[in-house]
Amino acid sequence: MFGASLFVQEAAGLTYNGLLSMQHRGQEGTGIAVLSGSNIVCHKDTGLVNEVFTRENLGKIHKSKLAVGHNRYSTTGRSAHINLQPFVTEYLTGRIAAVHNGNVTNAGKIKRQLMARGLNFNATSDTEVIASLIAYHCMREKDALKGVIRAADELEGAFTLIILSSEKKLIAVRDGSGYRPLCIGRGPAGLVVASESCALDSCGFRFVRDVRPGEVVVIENGEIIFEEVILEKKDPSSGLCIFEYVYFARPDSNIDGLSVYEARYNMGRMLAREHPVTADAVCGVPDSGLEAAIGYASESGLPLVSGFVKNRYIGRSFIFPTQSERESAVKMKLNPLRANLQGKSIVLVDDSIVRGTTSEKIVTALKQAGAREVHMRISSPPFRYACYFGTDIDTEENLIANKMELAAIRDKIGADSLGYISIGGLKAACEKAALPFCTKCFTGHGQKER
Amino acid sequence: MFGASLFVQEAAGLTYNGLLSMQHRGQEGTGIAVLSGSNIVCHKDTGLVNEVFTRENLGKIHKSKLAVGHNRYSTTGRSAHINLQPFVTEYLTGRIAAVHNGNVTNAGKIKRQLMARGLNFNATSDTEVIASLIAYHCMREKDALKGVIRAADELEGAFTLIILSSEKKLIAVRDGSGYRPLCIGRGPAGLVVASESCALDSCGFRFVRDVRPGEVVVIENGEIIFEEVILEKKDPSSGLCIFEYVYFARPDSNIDGLSVYEARYNMGRMLAREHPVTADAVCGVPDSGLEAAIGYASESGLPLVSGFVKNRYIGRSFIFPTQSERESAVKMKLNPLRANLQGKSIVLVDDSIVRGTTSEKIVTALKQAGAREVHMRISSPPFRYACYFGTDIDTEENLIANKMELAAIRDKIGADSLGYISIGGLKAACEKAALPFCTKCFTGHGQKER
Amino acid sequence: MFGASLFVQEAAGLTYNGLLSMQHRGQEGTGIAVLSGSNIVCHKDTGLVNEVFTRENLGKIHKSKLAVGHNRYSTTGRSAHINLQPFVTEYLTGRIAAVHNGNVTNAGKIKRQLMARGLNFNATSDTEVIASLIAYHCMREKDALKGVIRAADELEGAFTLIILSSEKKLIAVRDGSGYRPLCIGRGPAGLVVASESCALDSCGFRFVRDVRPGEVVVIENGEIIFEEVILEKKDPSSGLCIFEYVYFARPDSNIDGLSVYEARYNMGRMLAREHPVTADAVCGVPDSGLEAAIGYASESGLPLVSGFVKNRYIGRSFIFPTQSERESAVKMKLNPLRANLQGKSIVLVDDSIVRGTTSEKIVTALKQAGAREVHMRISSPPFRYACYFGTDIDTEENLIANKMELAAIRDKIGADSLGYISIGGLKAACEKAALPFCTKCFTGHGQKER
Amino acid sequence: MFGASLFVQEAAGLTYNGLLSMQHRGQEGTGIAVLSGSNIVCHKDTGLVNEVFTRENLGKIHKSKLAVGHNRYSTTGRSAHINLQPFVTEYLTGRIAAVHNGNVTNAGKIKRQLMARGLNFNATSDTEVIASLIAYHCMREKDALKGVIRAADELEGAFTLIILSSEKKLIAVRDGSGYRPLCIGRGPAGLVVASESCALDSCGFRFVRDVRPGEVVVIENGEIIFEEVILEKKDPSSGLCIFEYVYFARPDSNIDGLSVYEARYNMGRMLAREHPVTADAVCGVPDSGLEAAIGYASESGLPLVSGFVKNRYIGRSFIFPTQSERESAVKMKLNPLRANLQGKSIVLVDDSIVRGTTSEKIVTALKQAGAREVHMRISSPPFRYACYFGTDIDTEENLIANKMELAAIRDKIGADSLGYISIGGLKAACEKAALPFCTKCFTGHGQKER
Repeated sequence: MFGASLFVQEAAGLTYNGLLSMQHRGQEGTGIAVLSGSNIVCHKDTGLVNEVFTRENLGKIHKSKLAVGHNRYSTTGRSAHINLQPFVTEYLTGRIAAVHNGNVTNAGKIKRQLMARGLNFNATSDTEVIASLIAYHCMREKDALKGVIRAADELEGAFTLIILSSEKKLIAVRDGSGYRPLCIGRGPAGLVVASESCALDSCGFRFVRDVRPGEVVVIENGEIIFEEVILEKKDPSSGLCIFEYVYFARPDSNIDGLSVYEARYNMGRMLAREHPVTADAVCGVPDSGLEAAIGYASESGLPLVSGFVKNRYIGRSFIFPTQSERESAVKMKLNPLRANLQGKSIVLVDDSIVRGTTSEKIVTALKQAGAREVHMRISSPPFRYACYFGTDIDTEENLIANKMELAAIRDKIGADSLGYISIGGLKAACEKAALPFCTKCFTGHGQKER
Repeated sequence: MFGASLFVQEAAGLTYNGLLSMQHRGQEGTGIAVLSGSNIVCHKDTGLVNEVFTRENLGKIHKSKLAVGHNRYSTTGRSAHINLQPFVTEYLTGRIAAVHNGNVTNAGKIKRQLMARGLNFNATSDTEVIASLIAYHCMREKDALKGVIRAADELEGAFTLIILSSEKKLIAVRDGSGYRPLCIGRGPAGLVVASESCALDSCGFRFVRDVRPGEVVVIENGEIIFEEVILEKKDPSSGLCIFEYVYFARPDSNIDGLSVYEARYNMGRMLAREHPVTADAVCGVPDSGLEAAIGYASESGLPLVSGFVKNRYIGRSFIFPTQSERESAVKMKLNPLRANLQGKSIVLVDDSIVRGTTSEKIVTALKQAGAREVHMRISSPPFRYACYFGTDIDTEENLIANKMELAAIRDKIGADSLGYISIGGLKAACEKAALPFCTKCFTGHGQKER
Repeated sequence: MFGASLFVQEAAGLTYNGLLSMQHRGQEGTGIAVLSGSNIVCHKDTGLVNEVFTRENLGKIHKSKLAVGHNRYSTTGRSAHINLQPFVTEYLTGRIAAVHNGNVTNAGKIKRQLMARGLNFNATSDTEVIASLIAYHCMREKDALKGVIRAADELEGAFTLIILSSEKKLIAVRDGSGYRPLCIGRGPAGLVVASESCALDSCGFRFVRDVRPGEVVVIENGEIIFEEVILEKKDPSSGLCIFEYVYFARPDSNIDGLSVYEARYNMGRMLAREHPVTADAVCGVPDSGLEAAIGYASESGLPLVSGFVKNRYIGRSFIFPTQSERESAVKMKLNPLRANLQGKSIVLVDDSIVRGTTSEKIVTALKQAGAREVHMRISSPPFRYACYFGTDIDTEENLIANKMELAAIRDKIGADSLGYISIGGLKAACEKAALPFCTKCFTGHGQKER
Repeated sequence: MFGASLFVQEAAGLTYNGLLSMQHRGQEGTGIAVLSGSNIVCHKDTGLVNEVFTRENLGKIHKSKLAVGHNRYSTTGRSAHINLQPFVTEYLTGRIAAVHNGNVTNAGKIKRQLMARGLNFNATSDTEVIASLIAYHCMREKDALKGVIRAADELEGAFTLIILSSEKKLIAVRDGSGYRPLCIGRGPAGLVVASESCALDSCGFRFVRDVRPGEVVVIENGEIIFEEVILEKKDPSSGLCIFEYVYFARPDSNIDGLSVYEARYNMGRMLAREHPVTADAVCGVPDSGLEAAIGYASESGLPLVSGFVKNRYIGRSFIFPTQSERESAVKMKLNPLRANLQGKSIVLVDDSIVRGTTSEKIVTALKQAGAREVHMRISSPPFRYACYFGTDIDTEENLIANKMELAAIRDKIGADSLGYISIGGLKAACEKAALPFCTKCFTGHGQKER
């Protein structure tokens, strides 16, 4: 998510550049909406940012001071055009374009309530429900800010929102728990709001601050004209999704006071303390295990080596199936570096184990490449429970840690030892963060209401 | 380049998978030719391997035991369809499909000689000249192997070739100096020939050996039926292009007895010995400076840190120009990791400096991110002379090291110190390689004949 | 518009074939929605029918007994994806997919009323308003048929609708005036509803009857289960848009009891009676003036000749502008047949004159090709007033007949004489049609309410 | 084929416009080559003219005074990129770009002769052989014109050629029999050469004259600098392919003194005289039977009616196969106009019967639409023999007239009577043409040499 409120008419181009920097947060589709007079013009489609936008179509919507954009990461599997963001909604006295990151747990209930009042829906996503609820309240309150606040107050679960209003405002909202990150940046041309600070850097904008949990911030003409913590934290055990540090965010982002790189490095150090092992070298699984591997090596004193070379071009390539090849698909993407592995006992650091199938292939590949022993170290605790707040993790029955004990997992993936960081260790690694964490994917929680 | 001679009819699919693994050697276009009866069928187009080939078009040419493929890396700037490889050529008694890596220095002369005999040409590349010369001699010798040997004997400069002949043979040739790498792999279904060993790994094939400089290898029905060093080394000062270890090859490849990873690691260690510096940390420029940085850190005892995060999605994306952003283009691709740089004196390791403009931007970015000092270390000697053997380096007048002394370059790029590895140091780092090296881009050489 | 209710699961494929036959009614975009369980799945995009649908994406939605489809012909100039039909809408107790042809004159008012009740909108088209109104009433009435009737009763202007309801029904509606055509066809596999009967022929379905003005027809399991004229005709001077016979429909369609071909032929005959002229030959402007030219020739006894050859491949091709060519754009599309024109006095028959610019170019081209005289005959009366019911005609100020008298138009286009059919003559030509006509584009009418 | 020699630098744009007008002569691929300094730059690809060329790629090659272009109509089924024209060939002292229409019967022999001299080939088309032969002689003669003449003299069969030479000339050649048409046009900016005169009209150029059989014309700087009939007519019974008038050419073209429209009209009149019938109306099969139908109606005095409506959008669309439809594919493209057919005895005029399957479907469709009788009249004699000169007609065994007698064909297609024009009648219809005709597809001829 990215929003821009500028003094100059180049909000769409800036938003495009910002979205390019946050492509890792979603690759299914993308869109940008701008304010054009009292209208909102939106271009969105399935595909990567640089596939959907061309100099030509971007040039057509570029002349605006206000824009919001979004990269879609499908949490539902249904990724039709109709579910792409921003959602542009017209109500009696105005228009909004809404973008949303997270998962609203009472979206079904709200949708039914709105439908009972006669409203109807075209898409199948939470965001349409949120946009509709906001528009409903904006109409009744006759004021965009009041409407957004009323609507946000009804939402449960995880939501960060950026609302472009035809009242010429950008309204940023972060839920009371602060599940998902949101930050503000300033540049010579105005203010921007982004999911991750790396997008500010890419645009040459300066980090100002994170949006606080429960806060509503209104930006007009490149200046903050309202900022107040309004939404309460409904679940005392909730907080920032710790997987932002473990996996989601780019390591060059800073979230709620903590560098993602540093967090991962600390996780690696903590892992080394919690699960030391006598080995010859440490290596990380590219790309998300690399920083923790550096931390593990540093703390353990073991040398860090590159264990794999990742094919950077393979992306969405298909592999042609032949009988002549053995297990090519994994080696195609991640080829072990025999020179660093031959005859060695290796500590292999990865960020998580979900189904276990990839881990098994990677361990097998290391052993085939000559590794004598493979000691798997995971920089997050066992992933046992489905997430209701926006992480597109498999159904619970597919989570290997939901069904198996540590020893069984170790044997299944073929590792010589297996160590997960403890929840306490993970929290300690992230202790500089200003917020408490949501760790329900490790600890479990009540049933989701739908 | 990739060639497959199998017992089973799946040569095209295997070649596709092999080309996917060597996409780093060329991104302009790609092609695969297979033997179909006595015909040769070829599909080639501009674009990446996974853009040019689909399951459908690959399926159409898949049923063959013999295939050759090629990824094009334009050394001339002219990248029309007409210059794509393989080149399929019909002569009086047969057909060949030829792929070529390198640069034949007497191609112009050979072309004129052939034209004087009445031959004509459709394209503008060396490969057409080579294919035409081979076909010419195949016709006169009435034998593909003899023809290839006669032709190869006339060629000067750098050339590795894989020739698919309608005589149901695959003929691999490496010039007498061994400028470019070429290796043979064996799998359950037959033999393959590839520019780099990483392609064998990806296909699950086992490395057998490198093709020797000057050697001609003939493969039929998945078996080697001829192997002999035939071509002489014409220039005693020539050898394997040392830039294969410095930059071109993938680190998981093994070339002429030396692991590319190990070579780069050794370069880093050598750099640390030749240009030590008191600093706080070492970091490499992603991706090609990373292995040397590991070596530098190891030898110097300085901690290795990640200095940048590279946007893996940006590829051929355009950046939308806005006034609101400062120097976004570099930061879009390579964002400094402030947490690791703030207040520190950094050793920055990269593989080479060509024009100097990128180095300048990277050093500037590090300093803006808080680095106190930046000590640039380059894992290759100053790049002073144009290469006539296949490296697509800028014209000599654009090479910063051709025009400026060390101190001037250091000042231009804004580094606090600058150290290049010595030629001797580089050779020592690669001493395990079985071949002597060509280092003429560092030392210069006579005028190229055209 | 096309809808299918079949006994067998192939509604989407049949609808695709039907839409192919009605591509002439709209080329901007197309879509098909099917019932899948209680869900409605929709695929739509900008482009021609054969560009948007592939065997693959059609195969995915093919297994359904119920489908509706639509070809979009933008009446507003805004042709974003968001305005494409079918519109899929979910309300409290069900879902509908709606397609619409026509122009609802009180859509703005209805939209404001719905917004005042809290509803909001994402698109900018009438169809969204209609779909929303229907869903609103379906929810309140707890029955799709009752909801559709309530909604249709509120609509003013021109509308034919096909509604696919999750109650497994297809509901077809034609407004009380019958502005736009709609007919029912039967085949071995069930019933279909189409804008034009040519779509029935193409699918091998038999024409059953036209939907009557004001009628609502409900089809379930391939059978009509409800049929009743319910909607009243609000404007006594309204009726079927006579331009369906003049221009819109395909000549092989039968609308409300009259063959379009026959209607055009009769217009030509009537023109010959109203505006006889001594000339050598008659020719029509391809394609829409051809049938009237046949009628004119037949009535006048003058020989019919081909005056032009139309380039059938030019479609949306661009013409490259060069200085070397004179007026190439028109001749590129419509090249006069010199052999038939040289030295002759020609009666040129076309269906209408809108701005007059094309007519001027065509007359000029005929004269350059050697025509001695050009007598223009138009098979519709002077087009003076903008249409509020769905014809995408230029703004009134651009209508040449709105600003100029007959003689001035004749001089402007360079014709030697000019004759328009009279309103009475046109009606007489169409007298076999079962319905009265709307002829307000010729006669004018009150101000449209928005 | 189209070639332009202009005073101004816009040859490529003009050639593009010319190719657009001749899209009917080939839809598989297209290309344009221009002279740029002493280089020839070529852009070609598979697809329609407006798909292959964009304003952008055309703009890049637009600045030239000399261009040649070609639309490919595959006569072999192999339509790979490698066989597209123009063929650009470099020889010792120059370059040519060659385009060719026709079929050279001794291409195989010439290819073997050239290969015996050491030349080799990349493609599988005659045009490569021709280009190679020309280049061979240009090299030996040290002069493009002399080389072209020497080469053309060796060719047998049908060939019209336009050669762009790096000597800044356009050389047009027509074989001694004049099998294929070729004409010259003049405009304010220079001279152009085109296969059909309709391309001159489209560009606003004036028809100057046809190239004579056996003539070689050299154009330089927009002026003819050489024109001489040089090539002899090798086969006295040969001549202009009469199918150019029957089917290939656009009716608005003028070929060798005869308007194609007039020729077809005369064929219809002749048919009416040779095969009169008592019937109610005449109709033509769109599009190629329409002109002959007009002639038949005129001569017979029977009224002309439209028998079908052709779907102009269907082009290369696929039809989705469903069980619910009966024989949709034909009706999709050509829907009978019931209003004109019901209860009537119809004379149906078409240009030819090849396999007979389409004729059978069309007759069936007419009868299903109510025609009482269908009398088929064909404006060419029975098509009995394969053509070796460039008409891509089925193999002989598939030609219905090669296997069946008239009565059997009539019964097979379901017509009530069947009449073909006689060879004499066809020649009489075309008697104004300045050339004798090749009619070997009707009369047979010796075995082709390959």
